[in-house]
Amino acid sequence: MSDIYESTENAIYEPLVSVKWVNDGLQLLDQRLLPESIVMLTLTTPEEVWEAIHAMKVRGAPAIGIAAAYGVVLESMRYDGVDKLEWLDHVNKACDYLATSRPTAVNLFWALDRMRNKASQLTAQGNDLPSLKETLLAEASAIQAEDEEVCRRIGENALPLFHDGMGVLTHCNAGGLATAKYGTATAPMYLAHEQGMRLKVYADETRPVLQGSRLTAFELQQAGIDVTLLCDNMAGLVMSKGWVQAVIVGTDRVAANGDVANKIGTYSLAVLAKAHGIPFYVACPLSTIDLNTASGDLIPIEERPGHEVTEGFGKRTAPQGIKVYNPAFDVTPNEYVTAIITEKGIVRAPYAENLASLFR
Amino acid sequence: MSDIYESTENAIYEPLVSVKWVNDGLQLLDQRLLPESIVMLTLTTPEEVWEAIHAMKVRGAPAIGIAAAYGVVLESMRYDGVDKLEWLDHVNKACDYLATSRPTAVNLFWALDRMRNKASQLTAQGNDLPSLKETLLAEASAIQAEDEEVCRRIGENALPLFHDGMGVLTHCNAGGLATAKYGTATAPMYLAHEQGMRLKVYADETRPVLQGSRLTAFELQQAGIDVTLLCDNMAGLVMSKGWVQAVIVGTDRVAANGDVANKIGTYSLAVLAKAHGIPFYVACPLSTIDLNTASGDLIPIEERPGHEVTEGFGKRTAPQGIKVYNPAFDVTPNEYVTAIITEKGIVRAPYAENLASLFR
Repeated sequence: MSDIYESTENAIYEPLVSVKWVNDGLQLLDQRLLPESIVMLTLTTPEEVWEAIHAMKVRGAPAIGIAAAYGVVLESMRYDGVDKLEWLDHVNKACDYLATSRPTAVNLFWALDRMRNKASQLTAQGNDLPSLKETLLAEASAIQAEDEEVCRRIGENALPLFHDGMGVLTHCNAGGLATAKYGTATAPMYLAHEQGMRLKVYADETRPVLQGSRLTAFELQQAGIDVTLLCDNMAGLVMSKGWVQAVIVGTDRVAANGDVANKIGTYSLAVLAKAHGIPFYVACPLSTIDLNTASGDLIPIEERPGHEVTEGFGKRTAPQGIKVYNPAFDVTPNEYVTAIITEKGIVRAPYAENLASLFR
Repeated sequence: MSDIYESTENAIYEPLVSVKWVNDGLQLLDQRLLPESIVMLTLTTPEEVWEAIHAMKVRGAPAIGIAAAYGVVLESMRYDGVDKLEWLDHVNKACDYLATSRPTAVNLFWALDRMRNKASQLTAQGNDLPSLKETLLAEASAIQAEDEEVCRRIGENALPLFHDGMGVLTHCNAGGLATAKYGTATAPMYLAHEQGMRLKVYADETRPVLQGSRLTAFELQQAGIDVTLLCDNMAGLVMSKGWVQAVIVGTDRVAANGDVANKIGTYSLAVLAKAHGIPFYVACPLSTIDLNTASGDLIPIEERPGHEVTEGFGKRTAPQGIKVYNPAFDVTPNEYVTAIITEKGIVRAPYAENLASLFR
């Protein structure tokens, strides 16, 4: 079920794709094992897909949605009867089942609903069974292709903000591993690399869970992009040295007024960028902009268990019984945000007005 | 040679003393084992002291100097002859020997020179051997007492800047473990606690070596002081919430113009403090102020090996072969420093003038 590829110095670098449909099976990069092992799983049943999502072998909202859609395809292909309504019943049950793999991932439900709707629409149109199966696979591929296209457009829209030889700092992982390809904050890095523009990327390690060192540094290195790993508290020094001309991050939610919720540490970085006169960019698809949330102070900040801080590296590094404050996110007020880069273009202040106009 | 004390919930809290003279032996807290084990070593020979300094069981420049001074006393006491010049020769050789335990610790050489000078002065004055031995012990005790006094005075001078219920953020370990007692940045915390003033301390974990979580959080917890552990990248959020009314840190060197070199991350913290209107204090003895260094840009910044970042705590957390930038220190320009607190009082801008006047 799995092959292990060893990284070697002579490896041909290309962006790792975390979810891929290959020869009637779903190929999945086991993200839990990164960066120590690059293990590609080949999944051939919805049950294996359910388990992979549940166990977080695949992470990142878009990547989860894509994996689930292919999970439905695996059930569709497994059906070897001749009754279209029975086939539809199998597909719907697979959707119900896969929806239980992670309780709160919005993209998961969205992708499954799209697959479910497509299947019943196709059945109602009276297509034959082989073409039903084919078209359902095409729908899953479309979900993946659309995600890749959104990320690519974000990258294209961002690219004019960058130039050859520029230093760029990023935080956490808004990278290709979380999406079909390119990622959001990393999209201009990959596109620049494709076009021969050399960016010098600095990746915050991003305590406590170290997504920056485990994922971002890893995926950029794999793609052959010049990346240097930093501890979060080194960003100020790197800025003061003049090594960085832009900061770019992803986001979990943008409020209607342009306040940005993202991984803890983003706010500190935005304040430091402003103090050094460095632009602070946020890259995200329109689906992340929530016009129903008026401002960032209405976004709840998840607090996570202290053990992520006190024993995150394989052994305990803090005294027993110590109090820990471990917020997973922070909110960066819009005044620190130089621009928000979406698949529909670059948005600048005043955000309340300009974000709303994206949706008109 | 060692006793292990288990921390328990019912333990009586009191500040841990890292170096102590007890019953003709040197009691030393093994700082390498913190915070998981509190192991007090009892050393009875200069060889054991040399090994403890060399192996960094004792760390912190003042604590190293004190331990070495007691190492000389152990040699003095081991001499069981009756010839004073032979005794002096033993003492001098112990000083030479102990000076080789760490190559660059200034306090170590300073303390050993002081012991050496005292021994030859006493011998020249024609004292008898038992009184020579007694007075040399008294000199080591004086070095320790003076360090404790300097730290206590720093704390007393700082205390008017604090008030009951205040939130205070610190970085790295400028704590009692590094000194005879009280520490520098932690001195006002201990004195406030002695006087029943409740401070709420936030301790940055301080990547990559985690002195904040392993040492500062530990020693304040042991003393019964209210301390909460943070990742470095959470400081901005904590400030924006209004939880912190002062930042206080130690320093490795203060330049003549008031620029402050300290553990990496200090500069980011100072910028964040300024952006939030929070005073940023530096606590240090006069011996740390270097009037021969005109400004901070003349202080070399040590870069340390990348493995401190990529595999600091028992397992690798970054891809093989990744580039790492790992500066051990940064320099905070004087414009970010609200005040420098010394044993001779509080110094504010203009620093060039006011620091120099401390030495007149």
